[in-house]
Amino acid sequence: MDAEIDFRSDNVGPVAPEIMEALAATNSGAASAYGGDALTAEVKLRYSELFEADVEVFAVPTGTAANAISLSACTPPWGAIYCHVDAHANTSECGATEFFSHGAKLVPVTGEHGRIDAAALEEALRDSGRGQAHRSQPATVTLTQATEWGAVYSHAQLDELAEIARAHSMSIHMDGARFAGALASANCTPAQGSWRRGVDILSFGVTKNGGLLCDAVVVFRPDLAETLKYRLRRTGYGWSKMRFAAVQLLAYVQGDLWLHLARRANLLAERLARGLTTTGAARLIAPVEANEVFVRLSDAAAAALNRAKIRVHPRGDNIVRMVCRSDMADADITRCIAAVTENHGIEKRAN
Amino acid sequence: MDAEIDFRSDNVGPVAPEIMEALAATNSGAASAYGGDALTAEVKLRYSELFEADVEVFAVPTGTAANAISLSACTPPWGAIYCHVDAHANTSECGATEFFSHGAKLVPVTGEHGRIDAAALEEALRDSGRGQAHRSQPATVTLTQATEWGAVYSHAQLDELAEIARAHSMSIHMDGARFAGALASANCTPAQGSWRRGVDILSFGVTKNGGLLCDAVVVFRPDLAETLKYRLRRTGYGWSKMRFAAVQLLAYVQGDLWLHLARRANLLAERLARGLTTTGAARLIAPVEANEVFVRLSDAAAAALNRAKIRVHPRGDNIVRMVCRSDMADADITRCIAAVTENHGIEKRAN
Amino acid sequence: MDAEIDFRSDNVGPVAPEIMEALAATNSGAASAYGGDALTAEVKLRYSELFEADVEVFAVPTGTAANAISLSACTPPWGAIYCHVDAHANTSECGATEFFSHGAKLVPVTGEHGRIDAAALEEALRDSGRGQAHRSQPATVTLTQATEWGAVYSHAQLDELAEIARAHSMSIHMDGARFAGALASANCTPAQGSWRRGVDILSFGVTKNGGLLCDAVVVFRPDLAETLKYRLRRTGYGWSKMRFAAVQLLAYVQGDLWLHLARRANLLAERLARGLTTTGAARLIAPVEANEVFVRLSDAAAAALNRAKIRVHPRGDNIVRMVCRSDMADADITRCIAAVTENHGIEKRAN
Amino acid sequence: MDAEIDFRSDNVGPVAPEIMEALAATNSGAASAYGGDALTAEVKLRYSELFEADVEVFAVPTGTAANAISLSACTPPWGAIYCHVDAHANTSECGATEFFSHGAKLVPVTGEHGRIDAAALEEALRDSGRGQAHRSQPATVTLTQATEWGAVYSHAQLDELAEIARAHSMSIHMDGARFAGALASANCTPAQGSWRRGVDILSFGVTKNGGLLCDAVVVFRPDLAETLKYRLRRTGYGWSKMRFAAVQLLAYVQGDLWLHLARRANLLAERLARGLTTTGAARLIAPVEANEVFVRLSDAAAAALNRAKIRVHPRGDNIVRMVCRSDMADADITRCIAAVTENHGIEKRAN
Repeated sequence: MDAEIDFRSDNVGPVAPEIMEALAATNSGAASAYGGDALTAEVKLRYSELFEADVEVFAVPTGTAANAISLSACTPPWGAIYCHVDAHANTSECGATEFFSHGAKLVPVTGEHGRIDAAALEEALRDSGRGQAHRSQPATVTLTQATEWGAVYSHAQLDELAEIARAHSMSIHMDGARFAGALASANCTPAQGSWRRGVDILSFGVTKNGGLLCDAVVVFRPDLAETLKYRLRRTGYGWSKMRFAAVQLLAYVQGDLWLHLARRANLLAERLARGLTTTGAARLIAPVEANEVFVRLSDAAAAALNRAKIRVHPRGDNIVRMVCRSDMADADITRCIAAVTENHGIEKRAN
Repeated sequence: MDAEIDFRSDNVGPVAPEIMEALAATNSGAASAYGGDALTAEVKLRYSELFEADVEVFAVPTGTAANAISLSACTPPWGAIYCHVDAHANTSECGATEFFSHGAKLVPVTGEHGRIDAAALEEALRDSGRGQAHRSQPATVTLTQATEWGAVYSHAQLDELAEIARAHSMSIHMDGARFAGALASANCTPAQGSWRRGVDILSFGVTKNGGLLCDAVVVFRPDLAETLKYRLRRTGYGWSKMRFAAVQLLAYVQGDLWLHLARRANLLAERLARGLTTTGAARLIAPVEANEVFVRLSDAAAAALNRAKIRVHPRGDNIVRMVCRSDMADADITRCIAAVTENHGIEKRAN
Repeated sequence: MDAEIDFRSDNVGPVAPEIMEALAATNSGAASAYGGDALTAEVKLRYSELFEADVEVFAVPTGTAANAISLSACTPPWGAIYCHVDAHANTSECGATEFFSHGAKLVPVTGEHGRIDAAALEEALRDSGRGQAHRSQPATVTLTQATEWGAVYSHAQLDELAEIARAHSMSIHMDGARFAGALASANCTPAQGSWRRGVDILSFGVTKNGGLLCDAVVVFRPDLAETLKYRLRRTGYGWSKMRFAAVQLLAYVQGDLWLHLARRANLLAERLARGLTTTGAARLIAPVEANEVFVRLSDAAAAALNRAKIRVHPRGDNIVRMVCRSDMADADITRCIAAVTENHGIEKRAN
Repeated sequence: MDAEIDFRSDNVGPVAPEIMEALAATNSGAASAYGGDALTAEVKLRYSELFEADVEVFAVPTGTAANAISLSACTPPWGAIYCHVDAHANTSECGATEFFSHGAKLVPVTGEHGRIDAAALEEALRDSGRGQAHRSQPATVTLTQATEWGAVYSHAQLDELAEIARAHSMSIHMDGARFAGALASANCTPAQGSWRRGVDILSFGVTKNGGLLCDAVVVFRPDLAETLKYRLRRTGYGWSKMRFAAVQLLAYVQGDLWLHLARRANLLAERLARGLTTTGAARLIAPVEANEVFVRLSDAAAAALNRAKIRVHPRGDNIVRMVCRSDMADADITRCIAAVTENHGIEKRAN
């Protein structure tokens, strides 16, 4: 009998063996606590090379942690953070941003496929009441890359949004929970995908792309880094055995591991999307530009997946999310497509 | 040439191999995210057995996280938390408790060797202004076990404090960053050392006793657990790949590992203390009841340690903290004692 | 030359002479501070009679204060507050609700003329993720009565919303900055307009209806009142010379002053609306059910008002808000209508 | 039968007639809301003259409001505020400072008669852990002038503390709930008593010295004023009918009213202290340098006051606080002294 295949989320998967091995290999001797160790120092050097800039890097336990603490560093308590209406920080973090920022306001902006629409942002800002004490003041734009609907902002799109943000003296945060996937998709360097696009601070996702229990904040603007040291301590994020987080961040980028993993996940998603839509039983509702596939399924296709023990994340109205991971086998994708195709054939014959 | 020996903190050490191995062994397949997995469910069962009570357990990244979120669950924003003046939450967490509790007040109480003095607590509470809107209202007593000065509260001492807390309708939190060491020292069961002493919520320390990047909150009072689910999410503590934290919590207590580790650390500390004080060059300034040794060193002894590349944590006025860990070799202790003894001989002859 | 007439807001007006006189008449002798005085006690009695219920009343400096502290009493930090998209708390209080509630989330709901639409509320709640840790949890519905667009919820409308709120175990807050106007409009008792409609806590507006520097929170649910005592102190709202606030609250309702004032303001608004729309130069964009008139003006009419030194509050797209106050003279209304009419005549002749 | 005399607090008294009259005289016409009016503009001019500096002035409802918002403007959430152990902000504001500052830490420092001792402050700062993420970072020193024990810092004392603060790059806040009394006592100008002593931001007390429902924040450092505009709005302090607060602040200083009132209160306190101590039945426990008298009473004297219907504020251990107000009659003081003296005579004869 076939094993279950789990497409529900990136987070259901295991850890990249390279990371787990590096972790185990670190386990000897003593080292200074709270980030005073050599591996933590190496992270700063290695990531500065990687990003071609003098960055500060802070390991944090989760992507929500990365987002909330980054946004709090950019935004005063009376500030407003412009986000996509479907941004994770707006819909799925139980008010973490509001908590860490001491009450800043998330202002949802619309846009196709999870991308903030530049015109919609302009309009929201026109009505923002800059300088009026009655209004939370525009402080930050947060962009999710890849987006919550599996799309990837183009450089032109990012530049347009950055220009608007700058014109309003706002900081730019990037929620890069799937940053590796976005780079793999855009085929650009980390620098080209972040600070060269105007990003000031980045939630650098690791967990969703083969990580363990650690993500990171990468800071491109020194003034933002200054307060993070204290913010990280008072949030309880600052691990005393930091070297074991640092080694994860090092292993993750060693030999371009992160990009290899992301490329594979993206490739599987592309294959999956092609396979599903070819059958006619599934219709894409967003472009597949990273590792997520959003499709509307026929009832029969949904039932077929269920019968084949293929788990997906329901999003209402027959829409499902299917997330591909680098640890999946080619055969998983094939089996999934086959389940739907075969069923669809049956369905068509029955008509 | 001799290698460095590092007595500065529990946190400078490596991870117990059993935990690292269990982590690696978990690394396959898919599992529900955010604690919906089987290992997380097993943690609740296993810890409920261990504590002989139906407990809730929440994995968190750090001890500060455990303290701050536990105290926030017990204390309204206008509440007062009575702590020892040297409590970690009061001195070393950069205001995490104030942040998570939305402004509750830590009221420092004195007492020898890090133990809250019952009479001092009574007096502080007499002056607390219960029911007066001008005053932060007594809500919680937090006890550190073992204390910040290496002492361990006796059951009688805990019972006396608990009675006072109950008489004032206060919750009791235990900062158990070194809870295993305290149990090993008191030679009692987890239940006897916690909820049978009146503890409502426990910061269950793992990191300092061979853990990796994970501590826990153990909740004995169901009403406190209810809000924690949301608190954990909005603090960014809730790992999506929770099973990798759960497996650490399981391995930690498997086969009484945690108690074996703590007993060894305590034993080394006892040997170290005996050896150092026998020389006459070091004077204990607190009883050695767990794995920490606080001594006042002669200048010569301090210099000797330095020469021998033995690192200690200075606490001012020639006082140093020396923390023993289970991963240390017997020879490390012997070498440390020898360094001071030998030197002390020289010093005495020189006089 | 004509004096300026100021229709911009209720807040630009003076204080009802009865309140000012009562304040001056209180100014002798000594009285216990912080609300321990006889006048504060009398407020509770008098308002309990007025509301036909055992209410608690807390004087606060502003309507924003009343809203933010009321909402914080109903809503945990991880709670969600469902409000109209144009609610004052959502648009014009610089994040006061987020601040006082320690990060609760305002969820904007649409609806005509500032009234929350029941179907829209139902839909928003269907998607609220009750019990999911990722989501801010539905806690409170806040209704503005009269609404930000000058409309007044009918009893049937309030009952429908209350039923939805109850079905989701949510509290109901009413922003009654113009509560007197709403009662005058609905011609019902304070009880009928508040707790009999399911309201748990009321921002009881005084300032906009002839008050000075004081509004109030009226609490119908005893459990909500318990925490307010401390909340009021730590927000710095608790006046030490409370009797001078209490006397304002007493004078405001003495001999139904508040309702007389509101009726007059409503009447003037009705006359104004009729006069303006009869000319054809202004078109109502919301029903005039209390003391506010929202109209779209022709360019000529806007210019005419300006020439006649009649000040209005612009709301974009040629829409203006004109607020009538009880202290306005009949002649003010007449002059305003005349200015537009006369001009409109000219304008029509010119065509 | 004699009327009660109430020495419990400054706050039990009435309002200076000049302020009440000015308030009533303002009550006509319309004016821009939220501080856009002419009287609010005049406050800035008038207070800038008064303080011989370009100050910003913000009316707030209470002294607690003034303290909490001032301290929040000086102190980041991870900051530490050094205060006297008996500072109102530390003992009597239910955590307002912690709330408004989002969790900053009040560090209590000792010193005689409510004055922070310079050596104690130095010592506390030596141990502050500047730059260490574990510690709340020294940000602000708050001084209460006159102190909570009725003493007044000399200029030399203030200068010494300011020098320490500056050496540690800290801001200086003055809690001037009794600032007028301190100026009257020191016989110096407002500038000499504030910014020339290094004060950056001042809680300017009005209520305790004949005010109504309004105190103020006076800001000497422009960078601190910038954020206050938004802070004031989101705290709900910003009155819409601000002109009625502004007129109080103007009347309070018009013709040096505030200093006349303070001088009279101070004078009465001096007479009272002399009279009470001459009898031998009361012993001063703090110098009487403003309008407060702290004495230890014999049991007989305490009983005599009680019989004579003279109310005082008990502070434990037979210590009472007696506060003189400008509205008290000379005869009140005489009667109080007589009650104790007469009784003391009886008491002595009885011995």
